[in-house]
Order: sequence, then C-alpha cells, then structure tokens
Amino acid sequence: MQAEPARLSALIQALCRLPGIGRKSAQRISYHLLQRDRSGGNALALALTEAMTHIGACERCRNFSETPVCSLCLSEQRDSSLLCIVESPADVFAMEEAGYQGKYFVLMGRLSPLDGIGPQELGLDKLAARLAGARDGAAGSTEVKEVILATNSTMEGEATAHYINDIVRNYQIRVTRIAHGVPLGGELEYIDSHTLSHALAGRREVAA
Amino acid sequence: MQAEPARLSALIQALCRLPGIGRKSAQRISYHLLQRDRSGGNALALALTEAMTHIGACERCRNFSETPVCSLCLSEQRDSSLLCIVESPADVFAMEEAGYQGKYFVLMGRLSPLDGIGPQELGLDKLAARLAGARDGAAGSTEVKEVILATNSTMEGEATAHYINDIVRNYQIRVTRIAHGVPLGGELEYIDSHTLSHALAGRREVAA
Repeated sequence: MQAEPARLSALIQALCRLPGIGRKSAQRISYHLLQRDRSGGNALALALTEAMTHIGACERCRNFSETPVCSLCLSEQRDSSLLCIVESPADVFAMEEAGYQGKYFVLMGRLSPLDGIGPQELGLDKLAARLAGARDGAAGSTEVKEVILATNSTMEGEATAHYINDIVRNYQIRVTRIAHGVPLGGELEYIDSHTLSHALAGRREVAA
Repeated sequence: MQAEPARLSALIQALCRLPGIGRKSAQRISYHLLQRDRSGGNALALALTEAMTHIGACERCRNFSETPVCSLCLSEQRDSSLLCIVESPADVFAMEEAGYQGKYFVLMGRLSPLDGIGPQELGLDKLAARLAGARDGAAGSTEVKEVILATNSTMEGEATAHYINDIVRNYQIRVTRIAHGVPLGGELEYIDSHTLSHALAGRREVAA
C-alpha cells in the first residue's frame, strides 16, 4: 500500500540525490517543509532555479560567477602578481578565510585520467594562455610573478600540482607549493609519518 | 571581500533552513549541484514547488494528501474498525512498515500548551465528530470499534494519549495503547529503568 502521495515521494527522491542526504534525512526534511515551513520550501525552489540558471563560470579564473568575469578577478584591490591555483570553489572560500589577497585560478577538479579528466577539462590551456599573456604583457593580462600551487595534498592533487609546475616553468615564473606539515594544535604523537616527514623536510630557521 | 556570487549565497542560505543541514553541508550541496548535477538541482526545484503547491491535508485523517481524501482513508481493503492515532506522517510510514492494516488519524503534532498547541490544533474536534459518527452510524462514517493510541512515548505524547483517551471513552469505544517495553535485540543491562518497569508491568502469560 502506497502511504505517501506521489509528489511527496518525488520530493524525497530528489532530496536523496543530494550528497550526504539519505532516505531518512530526505523524509525528515520533506515532512518538515510540508508541515512547518512551506515558505522555506518555496524559497529553496526559487533559490535553486535562480542559481542553476544564472551562475556560470568566470572567463578568467573559472570560479562560479554570475557575471562573465567574477568580482575577485575584476578587483583592483587584490595583488595581481600572485596567482593561486586551487581545485574547487570551496578551496577559494577556504583561502579567503585564511586571508589570501591575490588572484585565483580554479581547476574545478583535478587530473584523473581514469575518470576522463585531463588538462583540457581543467582549463590548463586557458591557464597557459594567461601566463603567456603575463610574460608578453599582452592587453588585458595580469602580471603574474608567482604561481602558488594550492591543490589538495592527495595523490591526484600532487600529480596535478606537478603537471602544472611543468607548464608554469615554461614561462619563467616563480612557482611555489603551500607548505605541508603538522596542523596548528596537532600533536606529533598522532600525526601520520608522511606528514611528519614533510614537516621535517620543510623545517625553518628559528629567529633569535 | 565577497567571494561568492549573490545567488550562490542565497542558495546556501535557503539550504541552511532545512533541518539537519549546517553551513558546511549547504555549501557542499550547492557546489555539488552547480559543478556536477544541475539537472538534479532543477529537478529538486520542480519537486519542491510541486509538493508545496499540491500536497494538502486529507479531510478525514489529516495526513498529507494530494486529493481531498487520501488513498489510505478511501481504501476498502483496510480494516475500518481499527483507528490508529499517531503524531505525524512519519509515524504512519513506520506503522505501515510494521504491517498495520487499519485506518489512521494523524494529529500533526502533540499537545503542547507552551507552544500554543491545544486540542483545536490537533483536530481533536474532527476526531470526536468521527467517533460520534461511528456510534450513531451517520452517513459516510467508519465503524470504529477500537482506537489505538500510538503517540510517542514522550512526556507530551503520553499527555496527548491520556487526553484522547478521555474523549474516546465518551463514545463507549475500546481504547488501547501500544505496548512499551524492551525493544527486540535490546539487552536488559542497558535499558533504562522506566522502560524496564513498563516491560515488567506489561508482562504476559507464556503459552505452554
């Protein structure tokens, strides 16, 4: 016996497609919206439609943007000599929280040949063109003096960083990689040995 | 510096209103939809609008329904002499899973005077009218012979069950309460003492 109205089942199904939402949560959310917050449900529907329709990719950095070029790329307050390369918009958010003041290039993924994600999918041709412009001083180009590789510290993230390093080297631009080591508040006893060996290799002189 | 497009912030905000979804999950869901599943986002928007617009309450049992009277109330296969009273549509779902074959009355809440939820809000006048119809044999009435109180075993659920019991008694209809005791697979050692005292009080003769 089908105890649920068809449209309720459809809503639960649609919610189940979201990452991290299982059948039980989808049910709870649907009941909540129907019973107590219909305006919230309608507001969410509108926000979804608006976002899916109007948010595209920035022509310069590939980050989410409602305009052809995003506000971060257009900003004159930011240091155009720094170009930070990250995997996803969430990473841009994290870097902003950390106080980074330069520009970005968002890969929207990482090299993963098995999943069919190659240099083309990550827009690395666009990155190369941008760096070439930086060297030649072409119109509309930024003057990138340093590329900061801030891909994740996973196998694929490292491979991607390595690959991009090779590209950037062609343009005689400085390339750096964010430091890997013991997180603040981390205890050595509980840190994995690979991280600790990175921390050791990356040790610095202590000021007197 | 606002790193997010306004419509992305709006979507994250709208998702944060859902129960059990925090800022971080909302962000992850938004990024996922924009990056990898725009059709899923649009499908969800449509499902939400459809559900919020077309799902109302059944005139008889107050459960969610797309039609004036829901399919469970209309069904002739179900035992009309049993009326199970539950707090929410999720409880109907749970009872169905447990194999219950009678009819329902859904309170859509529980008595909670501090939150302004009284007998009126739970449709208890409608319940009384239905039971009166059952006794007088009025047109369109069901012949309820037993009311099963299946409100939650919380303080408020118990108070609600007690209140409804008083109503039903007026109509000389049998009233039962679902059993409380040790859940299947539960170990006595870890069961709280109130549940155990219920289990003890509700003990039954073992068949030879």
